[in-house]
Amino acid sequence: MSLVIVGTVAFDTIETPFGRVEKVIGGSGTYFSWAASNFHNDIKLVSIIGSDWPKEELAAMQQRGIDTRGIEIVEDGKSFFWAGRYHEDMNGRDTLTTDLNVLDDFDPDLPADYRNAEYLMLGNLTPEIQMQVISQMNADPKLIAMDTMNFWMDVAWDSLLKAIEQVDLLMINDEEARQLSGEYSLVNAAEKILTMGPSYLIIKKGEHGALLFGKEGIFVAPALPLAQIKDPTGAGDTFAGGLMGYLASSGDISFENMKRGIIKGSALASYCVEDFSLDRLRTVTDIELQERVNTFRDIVTF
Amino acid sequence: MSLVIVGTVAFDTIETPFGRVEKVIGGSGTYFSWAASNFHNDIKLVSIIGSDWPKEELAAMQQRGIDTRGIEIVEDGKSFFWAGRYHEDMNGRDTLTTDLNVLDDFDPDLPADYRNAEYLMLGNLTPEIQMQVISQMNADPKLIAMDTMNFWMDVAWDSLLKAIEQVDLLMINDEEARQLSGEYSLVNAAEKILTMGPSYLIIKKGEHGALLFGKEGIFVAPALPLAQIKDPTGAGDTFAGGLMGYLASSGDISFENMKRGIIKGSALASYCVEDFSLDRLRTVTDIELQERVNTFRDIVTF
Repeated sequence: MSLVIVGTVAFDTIETPFGRVEKVIGGSGTYFSWAASNFHNDIKLVSIIGSDWPKEELAAMQQRGIDTRGIEIVEDGKSFFWAGRYHEDMNGRDTLTTDLNVLDDFDPDLPADYRNAEYLMLGNLTPEIQMQVISQMNADPKLIAMDTMNFWMDVAWDSLLKAIEQVDLLMINDEEARQLSGEYSLVNAAEKILTMGPSYLIIKKGEHGALLFGKEGIFVAPALPLAQIKDPTGAGDTFAGGLMGYLASSGDISFENMKRGIIKGSALASYCVEDFSLDRLRTVTDIELQERVNTFRDIVTF
Repeated sequence: MSLVIVGTVAFDTIETPFGRVEKVIGGSGTYFSWAASNFHNDIKLVSIIGSDWPKEELAAMQQRGIDTRGIEIVEDGKSFFWAGRYHEDMNGRDTLTTDLNVLDDFDPDLPADYRNAEYLMLGNLTPEIQMQVISQMNADPKLIAMDTMNFWMDVAWDSLLKAIEQVDLLMINDEEARQLSGEYSLVNAAEKILTMGPSYLIIKKGEHGALLFGKEGIFVAPALPLAQIKDPTGAGDTFAGGLMGYLASSGDISFENMKRGIIKGSALASYCVEDFSLDRLRTVTDIELQERVNTFRDIVTF
């Protein structure tokens, strides 16, 4: 079953206490797709890049089974660029540069065969673009998942609410859940958000794991305690992409299967942070992934 | 097997967004003992109180199987008093008053039969008092557990390290683990702390659960997402007391059994915060406790 992914394909310059990398491969759409491709081979990516984007990176995506026809290439345009510096403790970061470049003109027009996809992952973009994509789908997809951030709560509250109304699974962090709901307790926040449209809510808590809420109950996913995090960039997108790839591959969106998908996504994310950019994701094997899923089970079993 | 508990028996005045209670029953020794008494009936409490401490509260402890002969009662003395106000989000608190009163003269002298106990729980007190108690034990106890706080790292570093050297299980929070080890990653922090004396380290993360580290590996205990926390006071002590009561009762200090004890302690703590002071702990039944342990298993199973 096709999984359509909408997100950025970008360059990142990243500084962490473990080093600095310049203009490396990044973007939510990139991380989503690479992560999802560990489980699924029918992924259709929607994004926009400039002609500065390396051809071999598009080829590498295609080799992973990622359909890149939905990526608009702007001749003489420059790809979206983000530069950030992580704090000494890795628990926060400062944005140094955000150059929207071609992203400023992102006006997605999905290829015809994309519009029949059953799974849709909407990365953190303006709520208007997220709704525009939803409106281009022919039939009601089986699962629409959406990521967003507090920025849109501050500047586009009304359209954000309209977008949220149309999705099945919302993924945000704990502070965003509190801001969106006006509730401090995450249980109360989830209860409120589940009346706003989504049937499922995932609250991402970074080094503290993630929570899944649905009418079926609550699932608490641990984070794997790690000795070293070299670069946290893309961890949340890797988590989400892994989950969506697993769900689309299995065709099962039950609460029980979402739990399994969350652990697969968490396992992938725990590899992602071991190195800069996509470096570790490019080499993760199925066996390594299964080993880490087993570790996630071991550390919570009593 | 006897469990000796050393901690404060105190009065608390507590303000939370859900109300205010004045001069209610509190203290780490009180919470430890009440929690442990859910699993064990051979508990010996060491503390100091003034004659203002309610006789019926001592009787209530004795009815739970808590031996109170180790509590020194200072005639005309006043019991330790703490007043605090929790922030709106419950995630922090300000201390309004700390009146040490009789605690200032705490010079524990364990009754003879206390000195043969196999389990010893040292609450957060000066490292000197903690070591004084250890030195009074006749044989090497099977398990010495200790709680401490960042305050002692600031003002009594050397003697704190000496105390830590003598214990088997150290229980501190994430910030304290970082300060004690000088490591930000909790995995690296734990590795370092496990070379300082203890065989086991529990890192308490409040609303994010707890981590157990030992040479056998890592265990990640979830926190139960709660809709309402009325009063967090004593939750950490309830957790520790429940764990120690369970371990002493089963006589098994293996890593596997510690995991079970941590979940029992977590379950008790999740009840503790439902009401002020000991109010909820007084009424928790074995069936309720088992139900919540089952919930802890459900929320992490995938």
